[in-house]
Amino acid sequence: MTRPATPGPAGTGAVPGAAARADGPDAADRADDVARGSAADRIDTVAYRPPSFHEMWRDLAPLGRDADSHGYRRYAWTAADTDCRAWFRAQAEARGLVHEVDRNGNQWAWLGDPLAGDAVVTGSHLDSVPDGGAFDGPLGVVSSFAALDELRRRGARFTRPLALTNFGDEEGARFGLACVGSRLTAGQLTPERAHELRDGAGVPLPKAMEAAGQDPSELGPDRERLARIGAFVELHIEQGRALDLSGDPVGIASAIWPHGRWRFDFRGEANHAGTTRLADRRDPMLTYAETVLAARREAELAGALATFGKISVEPNGVNAIPSLVRGWLDSRASDPAALDTVVAGIEAAAREHADRAGIELSVVRESFTPVVEFEHALRDELGSILRRSSGGRPVPVLGTGAGHDAGILSGSIPTAMLFVRNPTGVSHSPAESAAEDDCVAGVLALADVLEGLACS
Amino acid sequence: MTRPATPGPAGTGAVPGAAARADGPDAADRADDVARGSAADRIDTVAYRPPSFHEMWRDLAPLGRDADSHGYRRYAWTAADTDCRAWFRAQAEARGLVHEVDRNGNQWAWLGDPLAGDAVVTGSHLDSVPDGGAFDGPLGVVSSFAALDELRRRGARFTRPLALTNFGDEEGARFGLACVGSRLTAGQLTPERAHELRDGAGVPLPKAMEAAGQDPSELGPDRERLARIGAFVELHIEQGRALDLSGDPVGIASAIWPHGRWRFDFRGEANHAGTTRLADRRDPMLTYAETVLAARREAELAGALATFGKISVEPNGVNAIPSLVRGWLDSRASDPAALDTVVAGIEAAAREHADRAGIELSVVRESFTPVVEFEHALRDELGSILRRSSGGRPVPVLGTGAGHDAGILSGSIPTAMLFVRNPTGVSHSPAESAAEDDCVAGVLALADVLEGLACS
Repeated sequence: MTRPATPGPAGTGAVPGAAARADGPDAADRADDVARGSAADRIDTVAYRPPSFHEMWRDLAPLGRDADSHGYRRYAWTAADTDCRAWFRAQAEARGLVHEVDRNGNQWAWLGDPLAGDAVVTGSHLDSVPDGGAFDGPLGVVSSFAALDELRRRGARFTRPLALTNFGDEEGARFGLACVGSRLTAGQLTPERAHELRDGAGVPLPKAMEAAGQDPSELGPDRERLARIGAFVELHIEQGRALDLSGDPVGIASAIWPHGRWRFDFRGEANHAGTTRLADRRDPMLTYAETVLAARREAELAGALATFGKISVEPNGVNAIPSLVRGWLDSRASDPAALDTVVAGIEAAAREHADRAGIELSVVRESFTPVVEFEHALRDELGSILRRSSGGRPVPVLGTGAGHDAGILSGSIPTAMLFVRNPTGVSHSPAESAAEDDCVAGVLALADVLEGLACS
Repeated sequence: MTRPATPGPAGTGAVPGAAARADGPDAADRADDVARGSAADRIDTVAYRPPSFHEMWRDLAPLGRDADSHGYRRYAWTAADTDCRAWFRAQAEARGLVHEVDRNGNQWAWLGDPLAGDAVVTGSHLDSVPDGGAFDGPLGVVSSFAALDELRRRGARFTRPLALTNFGDEEGARFGLACVGSRLTAGQLTPERAHELRDGAGVPLPKAMEAAGQDPSELGPDRERLARIGAFVELHIEQGRALDLSGDPVGIASAIWPHGRWRFDFRGEANHAGTTRLADRRDPMLTYAETVLAARREAELAGALATFGKISVEPNGVNAIPSLVRGWLDSRASDPAALDTVVAGIEAAAREHADRAGIELSVVRESFTPVVEFEHALRDELGSILRRSSGGRPVPVLGTGAGHDAGILSGSIPTAMLFVRNPTGVSHSPAESAAEDDCVAGVLALADVLEGLACS
C-alpha cells in the first residue's frame, strides 16, 4: 500500500485484538472508511498496562538468534524478519496505534492523524548484520514504544502526530546495500536498481518481498509521506566508546562522517609455493600485507579509521603463490579532507610497495557517502530539552562513522539522533551491549525529546 | 582389477586396433589366456611410425584446457581426466604395449613381462592443479613414450621389463590430498581414509571413481606390484630456475625438501569498522599482515621458502573488523633444521605481534613430509649414464621443494627423477613453459637412462 492509513476506532480501543488492522492489502481502502482523529487524548482512559522495556526486550530477544553464534541473523524479508515485523505490529496494535506498511516495506505505527502534517517520527530498524548484536536497531524501536508509554504515563498531551517506525533492510546484510527502505523512500535508490538487487543465492529483492507477503510493485520515492514529517529522531546504541569515556549515558549526534569503500586489486604471478625462489616471486600477498599495515598507520596519523576486513584471494591454495589478492578498504574520517588524506596515503604506500615487488595495482572506489551534518536547529533543540531535563548538565554531541536511516532521511527532513552508551564500544557482534540503566536513561531522554517536540 | 595383465599377442601386433585390451573389468581373466613373452625384440619389425614428441604434445594440448584462463583443469576422475587416460591408453596400444589400470586407478603400459620382476618404470601424471600449466606431469608421460620410440629407433634390446605409467590424482586438486594413486599403492594412504575423501561438492572419491568407470572396491596397497619394480624414474619440468641459472637443459634430483603446512588462527574481536576507535580494536588482520611479512623475512634469512597463499576471514565483510583471520603457511627448506628454524621464527614473530595486539593465536601443523633423499646408487647411476652420453659434462644434481609420486614411491623402491629446464621457473600456472629443444633433450636423456638401465 502506498497511502497512509488514518487512525480511527483503533485509536480508542487500546487493547490487543481490538485494534484495527490497517496493514493488509486493503488497509488503505478501509482507512478511508474510518473517521480521522487523534487517540492521544483518550489512550490513558482505557485499562492497558504496556509491557516494560525489560519485557519487550525479553520478547524480542529470541527472534532470529542463531543457537551457535548467539548472534542475530535478522535479514530482510526472511522468516526472522517477518517475526520481528509481527512483533512490531502487535506492539503497535496493543497500544491502539494504527499500523501500516508503506510502499517500500517500512513499518509505521501512528498516534494521531498521519495526514495532518508536521509529524514527529521516531524509530530505527529491527534487521541485523550477520551474527549481529541485540542492540543495533532494536534499541531504537523498543525505546520508541517505551518512550510513548512513558509519555502516556506522564499524561502528556500530543499537539503533533507521532509515528513510531521500523525501517526495512537497514543493514543491507542480504542484498548488499544498506538502508534500502529509507533510500527508496527518500529517492536515493531508484526502483529499477532496487529490482536488480539480489541476495547471495541469487534471489531478487522483489521475489524476496513477495515471498514475505509484501507487494514490491510500488517501490519508489514517497515524497508526500516525507512532506508530512516535521522531525525524525532515531535513538541508537553508540558504536564506539565516546560516551563511555565521557561518562554520559546519552549523547546527541552531530554528524555522520564521510565514508567510502575502495577495492584494492593486487595482481602478481601464480606460482608454486614449494619451488619458486623468493627472488623470482611476484607475490601479491606481501604487498597486501604492507598495505594493511600502511592503512593502520595512515589512519592513526589522521585520527581517522581505515580497515581491511574483507579479502578475496586467487587461487587461494596452500601451496600456491596467489595471482590475485583483492582487499577492500573501509575508511571514514571526521571531515572530507582528512578522509582524502588517509586514502591517498594508503594508496601511495600500496603503490610504492607494488612497484617494488612487480605487483600490478588497481584501486577502485566502490562507494562513497559524503558527510551528513544533522540539522543544527533540531540538534540544538534536543540539546536544550535534554539539558533542561538533566538539571542543566550539557549532553555531549558526538560524530559517528556509521550510516543510519537518519542519515539517509536527513537529506529530506529535519533529522536528529540520540546515542546510548556502549561500555565496550563493540558493535555488529553478539558481544554488543548496553547497561539496562543506560537503556532506561535512553528511553527517558527520548520521551523528553518527544514531549518537547510533540506535546503541549 | 588388481592383478597385472601379462602381455601376449599385443606385444607382437604393434599397430593401433591390433593391441589387446587388457584394461577392462575382465582384463585379468583375459590376461591369463594370453601367452607371456616380451615384445621388445619384435616391435621394430612392424611398420609403425610413432608420433613425434611434438605431435603427441599437440594432441594432448586441448584436453581439459579452460577457454578463459587457458590453464588446465584436469582433475581426477572428471571428463578431462578420462580424456587424458584415453589418450594414454591409445598411445600404449598404438605401440603394442599392454595397457592396464591397477587397483588404485594408476595406468600402466608394459613392454615385456610385468611378472618377470626387476622392471624399469618411467612416467608421471596427466592431472593438473586448477588452471595449471601444460608441463607439470604431462611432460614426463609424453617423454616416456617418446623415449621408448627413441630406443626402438636405436634398435635397443631390452633385458628388463619396461613400463610407462600415468599415476592417478597426483595434484590432489579435487580431493585435497596429493599423490592419491601412488600413496595408496605404497600403503601411505589407507583405503579407509581414501574412501572418506570428498571433493568440494561433497562427492566421495569412490563415487567419483565409479562415475568414471573405475571400480573403487579394491583400493589399497599393492606390494606385489612394487616388488616387481627395480627402478622408477620420473621426468618432470623443473619448478624453479636452478637449471636456467646453471645453463643446463637437464638435471638429476637429489632430494625433495622437507615441507609442511601450518594453519595460523588469529582471533580478535568482530566490530564495526566505521565506529570502533583504533585504540579499542583487536583486529586480527593486522597481526596476519605482520606475520606474512615475518614469514618472508625468516625465509630469506634461512635460504628457505615460506608462503601464505591461502586465507579465510570471518565475517569477511567490508565494514567489519574480522573476528578471525586464518592463514595457511607453506614452508620448505633444504634440511629439517632449516625448516624448523624458519617456522619457529615465523611463529615467534606472530606470537609477539599477537600478544601486543590482544590477538589470540593458535598454530596447528596440518601436514608434514620429511625430507626424501632419492636413492644414491640409482642417482649416481643416472649421473654416470648422462655424463657419458653428454661427452663427459657433469649433469647438475638439484633439490626440489615440490612433492612427486617419485617421492612417495622412494620409500618402497629405488627411485630417481630427471628435471627439464624451466626458463621462467613458473609452475602451477598457464605460464609454465619449457623450450621444445629442452623437451627433446629431456627425452634423449630419459632414453639414455632407460637404455642404460634396461637394455643390453
